[in-house]
Amino acid sequence: MYDKCINLLEERGVQLSDIAQCVLYLQKQHHPEIEEAEVIEVIKNVIKKREVQHAIITGITLDKLAESNSLQDDVLRDILVNDKSLYGIDEVLAYGICNLYGSIALTNFGYIDRVKPLIIKTLNEHGHMCHTFLDDIVGALAAAAASRIAHNAE
Amino acid sequence: MYDKCINLLEERGVQLSDIAQCVLYLQKQHHPEIEEAEVIEVIKNVIKKREVQHAIITGITLDKLAESNSLQDDVLRDILVNDKSLYGIDEVLAYGICNLYGSIALTNFGYIDRVKPLIIKTLNEHGHMCHTFLDDIVGALAAAAASRIAHNAE
Amino acid sequence: MYDKCINLLEERGVQLSDIAQCVLYLQKQHHPEIEEAEVIEVIKNVIKKREVQHAIITGITLDKLAESNSLQDDVLRDILVNDKSLYGIDEVLAYGICNLYGSIALTNFGYIDRVKPLIIKTLNEHGHMCHTFLDDIVGALAAAAASRIAHNAE
Amino acid sequence: MYDKCINLLEERGVQLSDIAQCVLYLQKQHHPEIEEAEVIEVIKNVIKKREVQHAIITGITLDKLAESNSLQDDVLRDILVNDKSLYGIDEVLAYGICNLYGSIALTNFGYIDRVKPLIIKTLNEHGHMCHTFLDDIVGALAAAAASRIAHNAE
Repeated sequence: MYDKCINLLEERGVQLSDIAQCVLYLQKQHHPEIEEAEVIEVIKNVIKKREVQHAIITGITLDKLAESNSLQDDVLRDILVNDKSLYGIDEVLAYGICNLYGSIALTNFGYIDRVKPLIIKTLNEHGHMCHTFLDDIVGALAAAAASRIAHNAE
Repeated sequence: MYDKCINLLEERGVQLSDIAQCVLYLQKQHHPEIEEAEVIEVIKNVIKKREVQHAIITGITLDKLAESNSLQDDVLRDILVNDKSLYGIDEVLAYGICNLYGSIALTNFGYIDRVKPLIIKTLNEHGHMCHTFLDDIVGALAAAAASRIAHNAE
Repeated sequence: MYDKCINLLEERGVQLSDIAQCVLYLQKQHHPEIEEAEVIEVIKNVIKKREVQHAIITGITLDKLAESNSLQDDVLRDILVNDKSLYGIDEVLAYGICNLYGSIALTNFGYIDRVKPLIIKTLNEHGHMCHTFLDDIVGALAAAAASRIAHNAE
Repeated sequence: MYDKCINLLEERGVQLSDIAQCVLYLQKQHHPEIEEAEVIEVIKNVIKKREVQHAIITGITLDKLAESNSLQDDVLRDILVNDKSLYGIDEVLAYGICNLYGSIALTNFGYIDRVKPLIIKTLNEHGHMCHTFLDDIVGALAAAAASRIAHNAE
């Protein structure tokens, strides 16, 4: 299941190092000394959690079905393909990840979801692809890892 | 969108009166005098919220895709068709509804999700149909309406 | 900080074995073979989390201040001493614990918060003591431990 | 209860217009045309919710008790007076407010809690006062109001 999640992320254009860059972005103020290799280990541990894996698989499956016009529901397809700003189920799934890492993860997510740096920006300029869920999943994985680093540092 | 949600619920075997019975089940201790017609109006107001509608459409679409073997992901299909007990994204979506109605809605949901009375029990004995998301959506709608009634009563 | 939390719980009348009985109550259907000693280890690990410790200390402090008439706010004191049913901040704190353990913890909490078995019942029949936060904290600790056991079992 | 909350906020140095400025800060990109008077009405409606009132009273009471050295728990007092960054109960209370307004409120809160503009910045440079809970409450009220405006606008 862990391998499947890593493969799904890569298939959709996201490497662990992309997520690590987001973590460094979130933590550079507080822990400028932290290195990418260390961050990647933390991200891997986040993705080893069963609930995180379920969120990744469910979200990316919805993105792919919307993209290939296979959702069998035109209203939902229209919402996902256009990433309608008042659709919040992608964030709800992301909170399902962040909640496991406490309140720091949630505020980190809110910040990165709004600023949209790095790979999150790239995913949002998707062209013909649908990344409605993926960009929030990436943000949530980065926010969760950053929270874990903050707690470990003390 | 409201009409679409009502139709989706009915298409999947859930009438507003089924949800109302769950609300009465949750509230009979505290508000035994409340009547079904009144409860149905509260449920309708819950379903008028945009975030609730998004949860209903997303969850039922996933159920239908799993059921018709159209998810294009065998791992997720296997999880949903068998309603694996450690898959929690259905509850995550349900919390997305309950959170809008405060802490009473969340405890009501936890209770009804565990006891599985009435239509929720029927949905769980689904035979060839997949109601992994729907039973939690119905529980969340009932819990949200019960919370609203409790707050209005004071 | 861990020791302080254990002491605070004991000072307020809650032993780890009381919480363990609640966990066994929640899990007896699914894991009847589990033993109290094993459950207590899981509960200890829950209480080792910093965010859990903060919730315990904050909630019990509020209970004690309400009880000794030292809250310096009569409206809040009145709410806490009478455990007003629409006051939900005690549940909000409990969710802060449960969220760290995923969706199973949340439904377990909703169930036990409603059924109020064992020590939770005792705390609610408090006489002159105020356990508005403590009963929810105990429920959340039990729900979190039960969720961890369910995930570990698979 | 509503009046009590307004008075508590003012007593601690927060006017409705301060919160409105935070809402305008959050919304200026999406709804630059919105006016302060309109925003204040939305904020008032947020504060009319019972669960919001409970969060305000509980959080500000904790701030005041910490400030006047009346918490009767030195560990908690030390955490609150120094606004320790890993203490997350203030955010947990804030999420109790934001959750009622959906996923947009949560991301707005995460953003404003990190950027700390305007009155939130002032509260954080508190000198001898303790605003550990208040700054998050103000952020949550602003985030909730901004979410309501976004939903109403469509």
